[in-house]
Amino acid sequence: MTTSAPAMPLTLDGSAVLHQMMRVKWAAWRALPENSQKEIAEETASFLGDGRHSAPFALLGHKSDLMLIHFRPSFEELAQVQLSLSRLAIGDYLEPVNSYLSVVELGLYDSTAKTYDQLMEQGIQPHSEEWDKKIEEVLQRQREAMLPRLLPDIPSSRYVCFYPMDRKRGETKNWYEESMAQRGRMMKEHGMIGRRYAGKVRQIISGSIGFDDWEWGVDLFADDPLVFKHLIYEMRFDEVSAVYALFGSFFVGLRFVATDLSEFLSGRLPAL
Amino acid sequence: MTTSAPAMPLTLDGSAVLHQMMRVKWAAWRALPENSQKEIAEETASFLGDGRHSAPFALLGHKSDLMLIHFRPSFEELAQVQLSLSRLAIGDYLEPVNSYLSVVELGLYDSTAKTYDQLMEQGIQPHSEEWDKKIEEVLQRQREAMLPRLLPDIPSSRYVCFYPMDRKRGETKNWYEESMAQRGRMMKEHGMIGRRYAGKVRQIISGSIGFDDWEWGVDLFADDPLVFKHLIYEMRFDEVSAVYALFGSFFVGLRFVATDLSEFLSGRLPAL
Amino acid sequence: MTTSAPAMPLTLDGSAVLHQMMRVKWAAWRALPENSQKEIAEETASFLGDGRHSAPFALLGHKSDLMLIHFRPSFEELAQVQLSLSRLAIGDYLEPVNSYLSVVELGLYDSTAKTYDQLMEQGIQPHSEEWDKKIEEVLQRQREAMLPRLLPDIPSSRYVCFYPMDRKRGETKNWYEESMAQRGRMMKEHGMIGRRYAGKVRQIISGSIGFDDWEWGVDLFADDPLVFKHLIYEMRFDEVSAVYALFGSFFVGLRFVATDLSEFLSGRLPAL
Amino acid sequence: MTTSAPAMPLTLDGSAVLHQMMRVKWAAWRALPENSQKEIAEETASFLGDGRHSAPFALLGHKSDLMLIHFRPSFEELAQVQLSLSRLAIGDYLEPVNSYLSVVELGLYDSTAKTYDQLMEQGIQPHSEEWDKKIEEVLQRQREAMLPRLLPDIPSSRYVCFYPMDRKRGETKNWYEESMAQRGRMMKEHGMIGRRYAGKVRQIISGSIGFDDWEWGVDLFADDPLVFKHLIYEMRFDEVSAVYALFGSFFVGLRFVATDLSEFLSGRLPAL
Amino acid sequence: MTTSAPAMPLTLDGSAVLHQMMRVKWAAWRALPENSQKEIAEETASFLGDGRHSAPFALLGHKSDLMLIHFRPSFEELAQVQLSLSRLAIGDYLEPVNSYLSVVELGLYDSTAKTYDQLMEQGIQPHSEEWDKKIEEVLQRQREAMLPRLLPDIPSSRYVCFYPMDRKRGETKNWYEESMAQRGRMMKEHGMIGRRYAGKVRQIISGSIGFDDWEWGVDLFADDPLVFKHLIYEMRFDEVSAVYALFGSFFVGLRFVATDLSEFLSGRLPAL
Repeated sequence: MTTSAPAMPLTLDGSAVLHQMMRVKWAAWRALPENSQKEIAEETASFLGDGRHSAPFALLGHKSDLMLIHFRPSFEELAQVQLSLSRLAIGDYLEPVNSYLSVVELGLYDSTAKTYDQLMEQGIQPHSEEWDKKIEEVLQRQREAMLPRLLPDIPSSRYVCFYPMDRKRGETKNWYEESMAQRGRMMKEHGMIGRRYAGKVRQIISGSIGFDDWEWGVDLFADDPLVFKHLIYEMRFDEVSAVYALFGSFFVGLRFVATDLSEFLSGRLPAL
Repeated sequence: MTTSAPAMPLTLDGSAVLHQMMRVKWAAWRALPENSQKEIAEETASFLGDGRHSAPFALLGHKSDLMLIHFRPSFEELAQVQLSLSRLAIGDYLEPVNSYLSVVELGLYDSTAKTYDQLMEQGIQPHSEEWDKKIEEVLQRQREAMLPRLLPDIPSSRYVCFYPMDRKRGETKNWYEESMAQRGRMMKEHGMIGRRYAGKVRQIISGSIGFDDWEWGVDLFADDPLVFKHLIYEMRFDEVSAVYALFGSFFVGLRFVATDLSEFLSGRLPAL
Repeated sequence: MTTSAPAMPLTLDGSAVLHQMMRVKWAAWRALPENSQKEIAEETASFLGDGRHSAPFALLGHKSDLMLIHFRPSFEELAQVQLSLSRLAIGDYLEPVNSYLSVVELGLYDSTAKTYDQLMEQGIQPHSEEWDKKIEEVLQRQREAMLPRLLPDIPSSRYVCFYPMDRKRGETKNWYEESMAQRGRMMKEHGMIGRRYAGKVRQIISGSIGFDDWEWGVDLFADDPLVFKHLIYEMRFDEVSAVYALFGSFFVGLRFVATDLSEFLSGRLPAL
Repeated sequence: MTTSAPAMPLTLDGSAVLHQMMRVKWAAWRALPENSQKEIAEETASFLGDGRHSAPFALLGHKSDLMLIHFRPSFEELAQVQLSLSRLAIGDYLEPVNSYLSVVELGLYDSTAKTYDQLMEQGIQPHSEEWDKKIEEVLQRQREAMLPRLLPDIPSSRYVCFYPMDRKRGETKNWYEESMAQRGRMMKEHGMIGRRYAGKVRQIISGSIGFDDWEWGVDLFADDPLVFKHLIYEMRFDEVSAVYALFGSFFVGLRFVATDLSEFLSGRLPAL
Repeated sequence: MTTSAPAMPLTLDGSAVLHQMMRVKWAAWRALPENSQKEIAEETASFLGDGRHSAPFALLGHKSDLMLIHFRPSFEELAQVQLSLSRLAIGDYLEPVNSYLSVVELGLYDSTAKTYDQLMEQGIQPHSEEWDKKIEEVLQRQREAMLPRLLPDIPSSRYVCFYPMDRKRGETKNWYEESMAQRGRMMKEHGMIGRRYAGKVRQIISGSIGFDDWEWGVDLFADDPLVFKHLIYEMRFDEVSAVYALFGSFFVGLRFVATDLSEFLSGRLPAL
């Protein structure tokens, strides 16, 4: 019989997310006659649609030329998106060099603590049928309240900053050995920094435990890319980041509309 | 003369397992006339068979397009499978980019502790002829009882999640220096989480010490991929995972039947 | 309510910076008729301009043949530079193998300490409207005073040494857990070494938190490359480097003027 | 003047060893007319000889298709083997993707302790002329006694398991700071596990300090590959492995005779 | 005001050094008519010269086929060497896969301690004008005395062993936090092992702080390659290596004279 509350915070899952980072095979593209280029770019743009669920970004640096972000209701649909792109004519001119698979996630540290405390006080055994039912009620309430944040459109800012991250499991500093109370406190302090950047940056966290090589993906959307630097530098000093955050590669891109793909492939950065 | 029981738990070995992750050379494939595509896909499907021993999965992300899982009675047969695939016509359109070699493994922490205790109480010297005979009897009994789990068909769920893992051997936290009793206790707690997911996910552990670059391979099979995230996130807080687990890359795929390979290669995700 | 001063030092942001490291496809280049080589080199040189904002360097070693450094007012313009280069004829003869994205950064540890102390003494709440206004005044004053260092031309020395770096966040030695006073003291000692090299080497620090995979990029410019070795070796013994610095790859190159690109591509190292 | 015995154990060096892991370029090979395939395979088989000094293995997994192990009297001869293979016709169909360079090594922890103790008791100064002469006598005696183990034929078992390894030099656990007595004791315990597998597995240790990127290479030869798993798993719990062993990649292969190379390249795993 | 002696040892800089590791494109080379092969090999040999400043080595293993070592008076000249080689006809048949850039370095731990002590006793302020003048006098004297070791020819032994290395900067064991006295003592003990190998091996240390990804490059030259193993294994037990040394990849090669390049490229290892 379990006699203490679970260690895992409650979370809500939203849209399935795929980031695709691709190199453009410029030499092959340039060798195409102009009208073929136009046709292929149009076919691709039509596939990507109005930008709410699939959006192209011009990436800075050698890691990739183009990043596509896809938000879909399920992995089933993401898999079809990936497969279709491989078979579109544009597929011959794009080389997939990186990707990230995740699900929009809202962590509920606050509600978790409150709910677990209540249920424990009521003497309800964790993972009992009654426990699970109560938890599902809480999740359902939160899910309805947060639906727009669980199923967002891709924010329409000019700049994106994407990076994956882990919580450290070192020999002495181990996030997963911290108590729920400690973790909740640190996440709250972390969140208070973000709150001061409200209006300047939009953050979408997606969970990737079991899906990709890091535990979370972070997308920041802003019109001024310096905001990424200020926000992340400031956060680096809060306890949860200073001690427990491990970061993967950073990808910075400029959004454009899919119908400007032809312009992008002609070497002109499209305005947004 | 050894005077304490061995530190290694008893384990049972089952089917030999090969995971093959491959990129599809889409441009070359697209350049093939349709009837050649059809012939090649059919030849491959016929080679893969009815899906119980070899099954194809459409992978999400850039790591690969296609994962094949093979269960066979021996490495000898796995080697022939790999070699045959290299020489089939489809071989020219697949680029092997990753793989994993292992053997289905059932760890017997519970029986081990009981058996070792009994034998030690009877004054039987570890690794003596009598000890080895008694151990072999226990293994043989367990092997018969667990035969279906040792020689399973590839579960027919829509989704698979595969990842390799190690037990940490750090300077202060070292799994292989923990006592059998401590390890047994932690594995039991770990298993109790899994048990709550029974019916939603099927787990097949395969051992790869001496065979591949990590110590174990984990395959999870489920119809809802979110279950992978919930299960693995929850487990991350149990002691054996929080402190001692090191994870490799995660591969998530959607199963389809081999006869739909042609559909997959045409850019349409086959239903299962 | 926050009751202590922020942990992050004040910083000023200047030019957007892109380093591009590229391999020359020598065989393909050699196969070109001489007049095509000349045309392409001239087109590229004209694109790179007078060397104040874009400069070419012949790199030593196999990591790359050519490094381009670009200083621009914004990421928007850097993205256009990168895109244009991909589409220029020279693009077919260059393979991008590395890059670094950052923003010229001046850290203000000294002013930060003074300013925070003053504001705290005046009882102004960190991050309050008044606080932010006072901070912005300080930043604006410093920005004006340091404008030439924020928007520098690329120094015209013969040699460059570029490397990215991080501050360590280990389990016991963690830069981001040190107090502002300690960090300020260590940075000051670090700076005093640099000061002794004034006249021999010019250093440009750019910040890349949120932009690239390391926290800072360091460019050293000198006419004698041995100065790089002496300076960096000496610094390795100061506390901030000995204990807290992690270094990425080092790139050493010789600057030449863009109009000598044709000479470089003919296998003759141009004089500066 | 040195007043304590040396820390390094005495070792004997035998055959020079080269492991070559290669991918077969299947598409190019398949495109060859059958009689060319036959000729090339025969030329290669004749080069490899009767299998005592050079032997081919079909590897499992994507790491390579083919592993060649060469035992030779000297690096001079190994270099000629490597160079000849590059220039044989088969060279166009093999892509070298990994290798390992080492020398068969027998560690003499037992004799070392005894010899050092004796010489120290006799008051002979380490590294003095007399010391070196006595040591050389011991080595010479052992060398003669162990000649067959120093210059072995490649064992003719069906399976090979090769992996490189290091001894850990961590900040608190450091093999090279342990006393000779402690190291000797741990190596002896380690060896006792191996002894229980006598008859089932043949182990050849080769030293690669100064030659390749790990300190030792380990080759295990057996007819049942499960023995690799049992032996290495069991050893993982002994002190020297649990605390001090670091492992590289594992390569598992099936031996065949060189004259069956043509069969292998036709996609049929040859029997041994 | 600095009141303690500097932590950095005095060092002397000699020749600029470039190691180039290259794969031979055997298939393309074999396809060349014999007289073209001869011409290209002769052109390359003539470029490499008499072997004192540029020398070719046949490398063992898959890391590379050919290593060129270049000693030159300056980076300027090294850059021209690299550029010329890229444009020679041989350039089309060589793929650069690794390299190392450094400067011959003599560390003067002994003189440093004596000099610093003397100057401190005389009350001379570190880094004052007088201090710098005295130091420069010491360096100049040493430079003249050691000129042949600063500007050496490439030793003409049959075998080379090259590897890069770092001094550890761990959280508890950190070379750069050790006192000058401790470092001097450890370097002296380290040097005494080397001295016992005098006549059997020639060692050239080159410094690469600020130039390449490790702090030092080590070249050992010997006629018997087993000497590399014995020397490096023995050194692994001395304190400075056991605790503070981190090693990169090891490259072992056999020297031949440039005029035998054609023989090498025909698949016959040239005698020296």
